[in-house]
Amino acid sequence: MNACILAVGSEMLTPFRVDTNSLAITERLNAIGYDVRLKAVVADHVDELARVVEGALAWADLIVITGGLGPTEDDITRDAVARVLETPMDIDERIVERIKERFARRGLTMAAINQRQAMVPRGAVVLENPNGTAPGLWLERGRTAIVLLPGPPREMTPMFDAVIRERLAPKMAGRGLFRRVLKITGRSESDVDSHAQPIYSRWTAQDVPISTTILAALGQTELHLTAHAPGRAAADAALDAAVRELQDVFGPSVYSVDGRPLEAVVGALLRERGMTIAMAESCTGGLLASRLTDVPGSSGYVERGVVCYSNRAKTDLAGVPESLIAEHGAVSEPVARAMADGIRTRSGANVGVGITGIAGPGGGTPQKPVGTVAVAVIVEAETRVRTFQFIGPREMVKFQAAQAAMNMVRLLLLKLEK
Amino acid sequence: MNACILAVGSEMLTPFRVDTNSLAITERLNAIGYDVRLKAVVADHVDELARVVEGALAWADLIVITGGLGPTEDDITRDAVARVLETPMDIDERIVERIKERFARRGLTMAAINQRQAMVPRGAVVLENPNGTAPGLWLERGRTAIVLLPGPPREMTPMFDAVIRERLAPKMAGRGLFRRVLKITGRSESDVDSHAQPIYSRWTAQDVPISTTILAALGQTELHLTAHAPGRAAADAALDAAVRELQDVFGPSVYSVDGRPLEAVVGALLRERGMTIAMAESCTGGLLASRLTDVPGSSGYVERGVVCYSNRAKTDLAGVPESLIAEHGAVSEPVARAMADGIRTRSGANVGVGITGIAGPGGGTPQKPVGTVAVAVIVEAETRVRTFQFIGPREMVKFQAAQAAMNMVRLLLLKLEK
Repeated sequence: MNACILAVGSEMLTPFRVDTNSLAITERLNAIGYDVRLKAVVADHVDELARVVEGALAWADLIVITGGLGPTEDDITRDAVARVLETPMDIDERIVERIKERFARRGLTMAAINQRQAMVPRGAVVLENPNGTAPGLWLERGRTAIVLLPGPPREMTPMFDAVIRERLAPKMAGRGLFRRVLKITGRSESDVDSHAQPIYSRWTAQDVPISTTILAALGQTELHLTAHAPGRAAADAALDAAVRELQDVFGPSVYSVDGRPLEAVVGALLRERGMTIAMAESCTGGLLASRLTDVPGSSGYVERGVVCYSNRAKTDLAGVPESLIAEHGAVSEPVARAMADGIRTRSGANVGVGITGIAGPGGGTPQKPVGTVAVAVIVEAETRVRTFQFIGPREMVKFQAAQAAMNMVRLLLLKLEK
Repeated sequence: MNACILAVGSEMLTPFRVDTNSLAITERLNAIGYDVRLKAVVADHVDELARVVEGALAWADLIVITGGLGPTEDDITRDAVARVLETPMDIDERIVERIKERFARRGLTMAAINQRQAMVPRGAVVLENPNGTAPGLWLERGRTAIVLLPGPPREMTPMFDAVIRERLAPKMAGRGLFRRVLKITGRSESDVDSHAQPIYSRWTAQDVPISTTILAALGQTELHLTAHAPGRAAADAALDAAVRELQDVFGPSVYSVDGRPLEAVVGALLRERGMTIAMAESCTGGLLASRLTDVPGSSGYVERGVVCYSNRAKTDLAGVPESLIAEHGAVSEPVARAMADGIRTRSGANVGVGITGIAGPGGGTPQKPVGTVAVAVIVEAETRVRTFQFIGPREMVKFQAAQAAMNMVRLLLLKLEK
């Protein structure tokens, strides 16, 4: 079954934006066996969108359109689809009521303009939007289903999940593409590839073939395994075996086999052990604390964090002796260690982390260039300190430093050497 | 002049990849006055690409196609374009020679398969590729120019720069699209639109017409203004006037007219005043500090931050009296105020910020549901405290709370009421 994904919005035709909705949509469609053959971004212009929809109707089994369902004149998706299908539009009073209620709950009156969002091409099924005013629509024309969804991901995603569950998956009866994502940190992409390639090249000839894509992301490398199988059980068996083969080769460098980010993996390790963590951050500026606290339930193990950009703050908040900074410089392993030790002792947390470095673009020296970061981790009686040399602009250095610190915590919690 | 950008490659139709070439191409086309009306990613299938090219020929002045020029069977761009134009292909011996030389320089012999890369639709101009084996092609059909470029950015970009310089810019004679981005916070999208729409709808009929797109992002609304002008001076004059009109209506809600994010705007205000900032964060978990320190040079004004997730940390790090937490609850205006005051006094910073709230998904109560956040900002003798009710999952609540706190700092620094 062939699918086409259209994103509507002139702002995504500027140099500043990419359409990312289509990635989430593709993932869900692949999982139930749809093949995405065309993706397009179309301007907010009714003639232009109508032309593209018309073209896709000729070949696609499914057309998913995101965006252009808002209340303003720019929102032309309903009009374009109604025009292609030569269907009149009616006002759906139930939608009007729902929008009015939504406004009323926030103490507001519905603006007249929002009436546009209640226009429905005759024969369409209305898809509820629990997180916004724009409802979605489901239409059929011959063999082609057309799904209209709002653009904001937090509105689109749960609505598309419901469409998959209630309308598309039942049609596909279990066939599909099944995926696993292995996340590896602490090794380069080419190192990962040279070890993995001889293994995964064998998988394409199996009964349940698995194709592998290697993807270098910041601070980690991902291996995406895709099994083409008649059903979930066969796919799971093949993928489990494949994951074990890779884990044998990469050992503890594999931190996730289920897509979880490193902060969730570290959080689960802390929770299992009933341990708490505290961190003193300089160059990462709070990013480590912020990433750890992105995980629901992290208030159970994140005891505290301090961001000590200034030397005085390092002394005040983490008890780093001024003399130590004077002797070794603020960016040094002894200072990182003192930060980890100080924040751990003061907070009473089980795990202490200290990070100090030069995020750039200024502040580098020949001895300590931009990207130099010292990280210390203390878990109970054990201490590890390492100095890294990261590349890239400021935000990349921050991310990689937070990633490296979390990985040091993970390995120490697992009592694994690295 | 209308342009269409096509990326060829099935790997960009998986959930893992986006086409980023089109952003660089769009930027260059906009700068010389081309309007990109459609972008698409097409599978490696000759029929499918031919269909899309055929569709674009009906309306586009320029079609830029990247990818699918390699030597393998998957590389179908040349074939698809030749089919649409009904043009035979010939082997270009000069290209064969060039590829052979390229291989020879690396001590290799050209594989027979690379002969495919020397196939040229009759009438095409060959575009040299200094960084790879795949040459580009330039073809014309009626009013439409078609440019074929290899997919890897380091090959594509210099080749497209040469096409712009030698072929496209001379046609356009200084015309261009010129952009401004206004960022507004503290108002809803529909509120912004209902006030802005009567203004910007007039601009489309001006001598230098300006088109406007409204974009709701998390914690802010953006207005993208695009002037179609014969040159930069005319565009700047029209855009300056347009920006002033919007600033008159929205006043201090407009925090940026040059695309800068809020953290950079707040940073510049602090730097201009020679002031420093310190923050005590609970529910944002360090995100405010991390965003402020994303700005180069922020070490000059970010004095320190503390992440006090636990009540004990609020007392230890920001001096919040235990009795105050017991009386009002950790999420309350008095505690936010005590956090701001405590961190400011202890650090000696000019500006103190306290944030306490419920990021979710757990921890909400009927009185204080998930998304309730109290923010206090103290600048010298002035204090502001507000309680917000944000919607969405944990990471969205964190982002909106950090955004609201930065906006309160901005308004207080500007001595503006809100």
